[in-house]
Amino acid sequence: MSRPRFTPLVQSLPSTVPFVGPETQERAMGRAFKARLGANESVFGPSPAVQAAMQAALPDIWMYADPTHLALREALSARHDVPVENIVVGEGIDGLLGLLVRVLVSDGTPVVTSRGAYPTFNYHVTSFGGRLVQVPYRDDHEDPDALVAAAHSEGAPLVYIANPDNPMGSWHGAEVIEGMLDALPEGCVLCLDEAYMEFAPDGTEPRIDPEDDRVIRMRTFSKAQGMAGARVGYAIGSRRMIEAFGKVKNHFSMTRLSLVGAEAAARDATWIPHVRREVVAARARIAAIAEANGLTALPSATNFVAVDCGRDGDFAKAVLSALIERGVFVRMPFAEPENRCIRVSAGTPEMLDVLEAVLPEALAEARAAR
Amino acid sequence: MSRPRFTPLVQSLPSTVPFVGPETQERAMGRAFKARLGANESVFGPSPAVQAAMQAALPDIWMYADPTHLALREALSARHDVPVENIVVGEGIDGLLGLLVRVLVSDGTPVVTSRGAYPTFNYHVTSFGGRLVQVPYRDDHEDPDALVAAAHSEGAPLVYIANPDNPMGSWHGAEVIEGMLDALPEGCVLCLDEAYMEFAPDGTEPRIDPEDDRVIRMRTFSKAQGMAGARVGYAIGSRRMIEAFGKVKNHFSMTRLSLVGAEAAARDATWIPHVRREVVAARARIAAIAEANGLTALPSATNFVAVDCGRDGDFAKAVLSALIERGVFVRMPFAEPENRCIRVSAGTPEMLDVLEAVLPEALAEARAAR
Repeated sequence: MSRPRFTPLVQSLPSTVPFVGPETQERAMGRAFKARLGANESVFGPSPAVQAAMQAALPDIWMYADPTHLALREALSARHDVPVENIVVGEGIDGLLGLLVRVLVSDGTPVVTSRGAYPTFNYHVTSFGGRLVQVPYRDDHEDPDALVAAAHSEGAPLVYIANPDNPMGSWHGAEVIEGMLDALPEGCVLCLDEAYMEFAPDGTEPRIDPEDDRVIRMRTFSKAQGMAGARVGYAIGSRRMIEAFGKVKNHFSMTRLSLVGAEAAARDATWIPHVRREVVAARARIAAIAEANGLTALPSATNFVAVDCGRDGDFAKAVLSALIERGVFVRMPFAEPENRCIRVSAGTPEMLDVLEAVLPEALAEARAAR
Repeated sequence: MSRPRFTPLVQSLPSTVPFVGPETQERAMGRAFKARLGANESVFGPSPAVQAAMQAALPDIWMYADPTHLALREALSARHDVPVENIVVGEGIDGLLGLLVRVLVSDGTPVVTSRGAYPTFNYHVTSFGGRLVQVPYRDDHEDPDALVAAAHSEGAPLVYIANPDNPMGSWHGAEVIEGMLDALPEGCVLCLDEAYMEFAPDGTEPRIDPEDDRVIRMRTFSKAQGMAGARVGYAIGSRRMIEAFGKVKNHFSMTRLSLVGAEAAARDATWIPHVRREVVAARARIAAIAEANGLTALPSATNFVAVDCGRDGDFAKAVLSALIERGVFVRMPFAEPENRCIRVSAGTPEMLDVLEAVLPEALAEARAAR
């Protein structure tokens, strides 16, 4: 049989995915999770204004959406005080990371990130032929100095950092990120993933000129806005960068309902303060549950908490597996020594009741197995 | 200022988009179109079952969708009697075309299509560094013999054909497409765009083994299913091809609502026959309006009609502009001699009333200008 002539790059790629969804685990187990605390979704949902806007737009889905996404970009422009020309909308940060990598990375291009940071970024770098350079975390934080040093030594055109960080929940103050920009090598772009910024303390968000070519900021409606299933992310970057995205992206990738919903979210000033209060309470509850079981919750500027299980990665993995068996969907960091933790998303009180009920058993099972 | 180090390919690309949306035209004119007949959307909308399913899923949008899209793929598997392993879902055919090009095309790869065929395919080929080889239409049909001959002479790994064709509405019988597969060079993949297949006469749909590596079929919920704004397309291809897509695609690109809506559509056997009847009536009405104005409607196996304006491309363009000024959104073919036509989508009776009312003035204006 005649075989397709895949590119050498595609032939060289493994068949991996960055994340296995909880639905796949549920099918394997033959039952649904009782507490969905693994993907840092917002269990507090989208705002009523978002749902109303999307419902009203349902009869219009026979029409393609405006491929310029202008209405949403205008709402974001007003929210961030940034010109619309500096904003691009995409299918979540995941989609925008793919575009960013595509315009900067080709065969063998070195790209710097932290070992154990967001795997979907790595997936895109590898699948566009780039060469990943990974530096360790330092004290459970991504290490700006090490990232910048690697960018210099490797001559990298692209460096990734998430602030606040996923999976550890740690963060750097605005001045640290601003300092990184000044320290980067000439022509290097910082991909600043701010997916969790809405949960961070005051003083975390750096002051950045939107025309600054040294950085592109990634934001999302998936976390604080409770719209993960609507797939809306956006990036703020220089016009030069936004125009480069426009040369290669699928201009008709966004759904009409998601754009309408995101616009309503961007114009609703009340929802994020509400969600933030719920998340603060949930983080405190997770920390209390951890402490009651002899574990340590790490400080978090996100909608999840990294819980230090106090031993090595194998032990944390055993705890994770025991929680999953008991109907609690959680995930954990990939790299040592961060993988001594499990990562628990801010849940509803009912979901955290389940966690509280099963964590002692899960720990006992994990301890007995070692 | 430090400039991003874009890849040489990206630096070489022009800032063009395949289509300008009607919303951009509306903003430029300062008023809305009265009849939206330019993008081959289905004015007859999505089925009530689709809207009900999406409405019921609205509160769930805080959750990411299942990245395997299994529920929708199972519904499509049942509909087409094809294993789920041979089906991949994406953000419209546009998104899937981008993936197909990505896995087969790199710098300088020759890719064969028809001059004036779907521009988004060309956009993807160019933006992945491919070299477009374009053969002319023949008697308002894409020319299978010329496409196959060019694939041989150029050593192309990829050939595009739409059946039925956009923008002409013409079609080939199943046996012509089946014959193309046998005539293609070794290792060449036919991209068979069947976006409009639901509107075609019996005998148009080829019999293809889903494991046939020589072809990938593209289908969509944007046309007959009335869900253009939900961005759901799918491809049927060999497991080898589907696995290649999985190595590079954004696994979290699809929205929860769109997947739920498409699943409801795929399981609803009643809607497409209804839409088909409406489209047959609308095509006849467009033909009657054309004839009453001394123009000729071409036969159509789609939800639009190419109307031959009887002179050259400049004249058709003048008619098009005069229609747009009068609130009728229409488009036209890009290449000679097909650009003697304008392309009118099947509209509601009210929309076609507008067309009927303004076409005589538009023609008079175009004739006066020449």
